[in-house]
Amino acid sequence: MDRDLAPDGATRLFPIVGDPIAHVRSPAGMSRAFAAAGRNALCVPAHVAAADFEAAMAGFAAQANVDGLLITMPHKFAGFAHCATASARSRFLRAVNLMRREPDGTWHGDMLDGLGFVAAAGARGGEPRGERALLVGAGGAGSAIALALIEAGVSSLAIHDVDAGRRDALVGALAARGGPPVTAGSADPSGFGFVANATSAGMAPGDPLPLDVSRLALGAFVACVETSSDASPLVLAARARGHRASTGADMFVAIRDMMVAFLLGTGAFARRGDDAGA
Amino acid sequence: MDRDLAPDGATRLFPIVGDPIAHVRSPAGMSRAFAAAGRNALCVPAHVAAADFEAAMAGFAAQANVDGLLITMPHKFAGFAHCATASARSRFLRAVNLMRREPDGTWHGDMLDGLGFVAAAGARGGEPRGERALLVGAGGAGSAIALALIEAGVSSLAIHDVDAGRRDALVGALAARGGPPVTAGSADPSGFGFVANATSAGMAPGDPLPLDVSRLALGAFVACVETSSDASPLVLAARARGHRASTGADMFVAIRDMMVAFLLGTGAFARRGDDAGA
Repeated sequence: MDRDLAPDGATRLFPIVGDPIAHVRSPAGMSRAFAAAGRNALCVPAHVAAADFEAAMAGFAAQANVDGLLITMPHKFAGFAHCATASARSRFLRAVNLMRREPDGTWHGDMLDGLGFVAAAGARGGEPRGERALLVGAGGAGSAIALALIEAGVSSLAIHDVDAGRRDALVGALAARGGPPVTAGSADPSGFGFVANATSAGMAPGDPLPLDVSRLALGAFVACVETSSDASPLVLAARARGHRASTGADMFVAIRDMMVAFLLGTGAFARRGDDAGA
Repeated sequence: MDRDLAPDGATRLFPIVGDPIAHVRSPAGMSRAFAAAGRNALCVPAHVAAADFEAAMAGFAAQANVDGLLITMPHKFAGFAHCATASARSRFLRAVNLMRREPDGTWHGDMLDGLGFVAAAGARGGEPRGERALLVGAGGAGSAIALALIEAGVSSLAIHDVDAGRRDALVGALAARGGPPVTAGSADPSGFGFVANATSAGMAPGDPLPLDVSRLALGAFVACVETSSDASPLVLAARARGHRASTGADMFVAIRDMMVAFLLGTGAFARRGDDAGA
């Protein structure tokens, strides 16, 4: 069904740019998805340190068969700076996880990490719409997730971060957008129907979990961003107490088709005239 | 037997850099050869115009998982300028078709096109050793082939080119090296046991062939560099007259294993201390 994945001279490339890079799952999964879409295209890893990002970007621009990029840590903000146009969510976050080359040679960016997080929860039975949501972690991933939770229709959002300044900056930026109430929260999840973790807290042996699972509300859903294991200690603890939970590993599967559509400019991401300044 | 050719996050890359690039055979053939050697590595196309070569090179240097490059037209001379070290044949020609990244981050170059041409002839029964050889075409490919014919042991070499200045420059450079007699020749192949074509003359319908096949010596071998068809009009005409002949398409198969060994630094191309200034 899939085309042979061996490259040939006409293969189009979609590098995934990050540091580290050896652990990422996109090259195999995205390459198979391009093949399933009938495209002669591969996603290949590009191991680029932060200090080398600008040179790498100039190199991608110089390669006429590079049609798009997947951007991972630590380049999500630096990538945005290269985009002539970007989605509204990407402009709000000033970050990208995807960039595609437009016919005029400029880069168009989007940030689907938050959508992927919400879609992963949905695939495990977690629906944020109408729920009071708690988010732990207000960094780059947390910011994207916060925006996606609001766009998914939470009734309110509380944000906790050990860095109060970072927490307050995100609360303020989201409050300025309008929408549901956004407030500062704590590590106590009692009273929240949807609980999101956007930190790596609790991954090291003996470290405390990012929130107090003993105080999760009955029926609360736990969504975790951590991809470095199939199920983080937080997810395992929540499931042990009978809560449904989604993992970071679920995210890639949940939005793979959406990423393919963005990179190829098809489906919901087809190029339109009114995208130009979007 | 081969590993699955789907890339993953740990895949090492060996781009082939050229313009045009869609026609090249290396990505599939080299990728399968890397797999057969047990390596998680792919050869991918890099479509880079001459004006963009420097930016592309800076980009490859910025990608830590790019371990080597295959260089094709029009970059063979520009690539040489990036090499801190190179083989003696590459330094004589001031051109590369392969570059590998050394442990200290510098590029080491080689030029195997001439060896490939001679190996392709050998695979079709053509042995230049001891023969009077005629070469038509004194450009980049012709220069590499001239050097390889001399190193393969021809008894003499005559060189023909419609550009007399280019012909005389190559004759002079080879004569200054010492070795067998090198002289200016013509399009008349009579008296030569090994006849090499390094031009694309005769490829367009109605164009004259690069040499007068009616005057080929009995038993003369015809080796042609042209890769854009499986057998060029010259090769077809020579075979029709009973001559053995090799094609440009034979070259890749003949030196694929040698290219893999150079790029991986194995076998005859293993890194040694005395390579440093070689």
